[in-house]
Amino acid sequence: MNSDHIYNVGLEKNKANYTQLSPLSFLKRAASIYPNKVSVSYGDTHYKWSETYSRCRQLASALQQRGIDQGDTVAVMLPNVPAMYEAHFGISMAGAVLNALNYRLDADAIAFMLEHSEAKVFLFDREYSDVVKGALAKLKNKPLVIDVDDPLYEGGEFLGEIEYEDLLKEGAPDFDWHLPDDEWDAIALNYTSGTTGDPKGVVTHHRGAYLNAVSNMMAWSMPTHPVYLWTLPMFHANGWCFPWTVAAMVGTNVCLRAVREESIYALIKKEKVDYLCGAPIVLNMMANAADHLKQGIEQKVNIMTAGAAPPAAVLEAMQRMGFEVIHVYGLTETYGPAAVCAWHEEWNELSIIEQSELKSRQGVCYPMQENLMVANPDTMEPVKKNGETLGEIFFQGNIVMKGYLKNPDTTAKAFKGGWFHSGDLAVWHEDGYIQIKDRSKDVIISGGENISSIEVEGALYRHPQVLEAAVVARLDDKWGETPCAFVTLKDGEESSSEELIEFCRNNMAHFKAPKTIVFGPLPKTSTGKIQKFKLREQANQLT
Amino acid sequence: MNSDHIYNVGLEKNKANYTQLSPLSFLKRAASIYPNKVSVSYGDTHYKWSETYSRCRQLASALQQRGIDQGDTVAVMLPNVPAMYEAHFGISMAGAVLNALNYRLDADAIAFMLEHSEAKVFLFDREYSDVVKGALAKLKNKPLVIDVDDPLYEGGEFLGEIEYEDLLKEGAPDFDWHLPDDEWDAIALNYTSGTTGDPKGVVTHHRGAYLNAVSNMMAWSMPTHPVYLWTLPMFHANGWCFPWTVAAMVGTNVCLRAVREESIYALIKKEKVDYLCGAPIVLNMMANAADHLKQGIEQKVNIMTAGAAPPAAVLEAMQRMGFEVIHVYGLTETYGPAAVCAWHEEWNELSIIEQSELKSRQGVCYPMQENLMVANPDTMEPVKKNGETLGEIFFQGNIVMKGYLKNPDTTAKAFKGGWFHSGDLAVWHEDGYIQIKDRSKDVIISGGENISSIEVEGALYRHPQVLEAAVVARLDDKWGETPCAFVTLKDGEESSSEELIEFCRNNMAHFKAPKTIVFGPLPKTSTGKIQKFKLREQANQLT
Repeated sequence: MNSDHIYNVGLEKNKANYTQLSPLSFLKRAASIYPNKVSVSYGDTHYKWSETYSRCRQLASALQQRGIDQGDTVAVMLPNVPAMYEAHFGISMAGAVLNALNYRLDADAIAFMLEHSEAKVFLFDREYSDVVKGALAKLKNKPLVIDVDDPLYEGGEFLGEIEYEDLLKEGAPDFDWHLPDDEWDAIALNYTSGTTGDPKGVVTHHRGAYLNAVSNMMAWSMPTHPVYLWTLPMFHANGWCFPWTVAAMVGTNVCLRAVREESIYALIKKEKVDYLCGAPIVLNMMANAADHLKQGIEQKVNIMTAGAAPPAAVLEAMQRMGFEVIHVYGLTETYGPAAVCAWHEEWNELSIIEQSELKSRQGVCYPMQENLMVANPDTMEPVKKNGETLGEIFFQGNIVMKGYLKNPDTTAKAFKGGWFHSGDLAVWHEDGYIQIKDRSKDVIISGGENISSIEVEGALYRHPQVLEAAVVARLDDKWGETPCAFVTLKDGEESSSEELIEFCRNNMAHFKAPKTIVFGPLPKTSTGKIQKFKLREQANQLT
Repeated sequence: MNSDHIYNVGLEKNKANYTQLSPLSFLKRAASIYPNKVSVSYGDTHYKWSETYSRCRQLASALQQRGIDQGDTVAVMLPNVPAMYEAHFGISMAGAVLNALNYRLDADAIAFMLEHSEAKVFLFDREYSDVVKGALAKLKNKPLVIDVDDPLYEGGEFLGEIEYEDLLKEGAPDFDWHLPDDEWDAIALNYTSGTTGDPKGVVTHHRGAYLNAVSNMMAWSMPTHPVYLWTLPMFHANGWCFPWTVAAMVGTNVCLRAVREESIYALIKKEKVDYLCGAPIVLNMMANAADHLKQGIEQKVNIMTAGAAPPAAVLEAMQRMGFEVIHVYGLTETYGPAAVCAWHEEWNELSIIEQSELKSRQGVCYPMQENLMVANPDTMEPVKKNGETLGEIFFQGNIVMKGYLKNPDTTAKAFKGGWFHSGDLAVWHEDGYIQIKDRSKDVIISGGENISSIEVEGALYRHPQVLEAAVVARLDDKWGETPCAFVTLKDGEESSSEELIEFCRNNMAHFKAPKTIVFGPLPKTSTGKIQKFKLREQANQLT
């Protein structure tokens, strides 16, 4: 619109009619309207929203007094404890950027990240003191180190200058924080694990965090006052923005230090949890838990899963238990979920197997994401919506990162052509739903045919004795590559390579069936993703 | 944050990671994911989301072909029919601004608005042809006039160059529309009725419409696929942003030409309506409807009301019928709702009368509104949260208009001090909830004491024979002013001035009880607001 247009003259932005979007506003609102509602529950500790708000203000105030300034990085290495939740607000209230580190990384990786992010402050939990000690020893510029002393953990050691609760005492509970000057300002930095080279630092902003926090609620039809169980690590893409979603809906955060089936089911029953997120491995753990744990749940439990296409068999198992599973898809670069397998009521009429198959698709644009396409990465031409042509998944919209920190070349590559390149390969179904077939690098090319490792895994998961399966390419003189499957059987169960290969051949095109089966536990990342690059090495060392 | 900061370098906005917020995105998403779901239901007409999307694109395309350009005004004078819903998308898809006119205004007012808004196109319904003819006759620059021919209406006449359906046929169903260049661009223009002087043209923008559409859903915990009944006129602050909310949640719009208890209850039952909005007069009508109409509703019906503090007695009646009433407050300047009486679970333990009293308060900030305060309008100092000190209600945030069209002085006054001045007087309760006591001009000052007309009305509404009541100031030699009540009794009921005055004296401070009672129907605006300025004149002509 022209600037001299009647709708633009004398109608400028001002303090009364324009506010920067930031999820910090959700915390302020929750505390002002529901000050006495439980915000955070952890063991015997229960905070109210007024207390969480005060504690976050204290954190912000203390950080500022210790010299933290606009755009400084504050790193944390914490499990899902109350301090981790508070970090999602208090650090940005000081104008700083939250860098939540993966607590399963080694000292080298942590040292790299602390240095690359130029972290000024570092909060950590005693459980990781060995790694932290090693990482700190490698740093030239040491951050201010703060010990978070969780009384529910025994072991480890203090390495910091001050303990977290003492730090809070330095801060003012009525600290006069303010919203960011610009909603495009960074709110968080998250390093992607990266299978090659150095980790990349994904920078997100207040606007995106605000919008995806609300998207979560829309995608899930989440009402006011959810009781949300923290089975998903908050360091993982900021817990898919759920720290902010729970504040927006004035829910209760049920914290959880370690993800075990006993504690999950105990908390679901005790706290009346009705929402939780988790990688498929968490669903798998829940589905395979002992029957007595599963009994006595009175409320409906809604589960959001992502990270990989959940095997239909696991989805089925959860559904049979009466849990409502929603399947989303996204990356750290998209604030967690950026696509959702939006449900259609008429699908309820289908068999549970057909439902699971539909649900294993990654689906459509998340509510506040703008565009999604499957396209040829060279031409950027969308593929046909035929459920067969493979292409790369691309996103456009406000739920896409600012870029990679201090990495303009990789940033430019990621945004080439005005779309975010996900690196994931999918088909586009006639109804507009996408389905991931593989990461670019995970496709197996056998005798010139593309084989989706995920499809082969899906077949294996349907076998009653299989607990987990991962399929990678194995170099082959004749075929170029052949599918090689790594399989973990369920406790006390037995099977053979021959039986599993035969089972696959009966359920899919013969050339797709694995040629090799290896039994044993699977190497995983801290977020439960199977580390296929390790399996690929292993496959090629087989004799 | 400094522009050379690590979090700002090489991390700029681009086409992949930044999209202008606009509710048009909701329509695109609804049509792409749920193309076959019913979007609009009106009589025997049922459109699907794919059809509504195509029709809106046709409208945009046809308007552009007829010369409509960025920032042009397209005026409509329509009841809640499908064309009115489509106008909320199609007009902005052409880059134009929707000016929805109040269909109960006279020719002079309509002519004023068409001229002031510089409307290039004008869509109207035959029912208003007399007024439209009169208005058009007064205009120097006539807009392109389009007849909307609703087959469910008989009478009136065509005045336009082309009928709406024929216009649509001129447009392309796959029209390549685009989002606004800037989310701050105007989306709509709404004239406030204005009790003195010329109406003011409230200009709203895409960002605010998007955010308040989502606020509606958050405030109401509205899940996916609501069935929404259009009892609230869409011309009224764009139906409080609900045209966009229903698209965002992929619901069904049940259209309704005239608001009558028979059709309301019939549609609630037939279409399984679970959400509707309405002024207190609509609730009043529903509460006082014949019993046989009310029977046979199977779903829970959620009702949002605003426009005036609903009398506790009406709230009570609705609640007893099992309807869930939520009370919001706002103005055209705040896109409709900007405050909500957010409920607390523990209030469910209270008696229904206590619940109604709590619910009659206007409450707290709407989910995406930023700030709300009750303050002294001279000093801008917030009043004490004591439930007694009267102050003016002020808002800050994204749910506040751009300003008044071609009216910089009034705009500046409305935003003085960096807050939007509502003109409504309220107290602030200890728990942070506000309660409107009056419009500035409606307070009765009797013997130096302020009397809230709303409080006196509340007392009258509790009387079993009273259907409606309005209280205004009557000039008085001794007291300065005294409360004068205008009362409509329920059908076939009888009462007397003495009885009603005595009833009030028994329920409130004696000086607040009305000194005069006048029986008869009350003059109302098209949105159901009682026209107190007329009553004030009448009160002072009493002998």
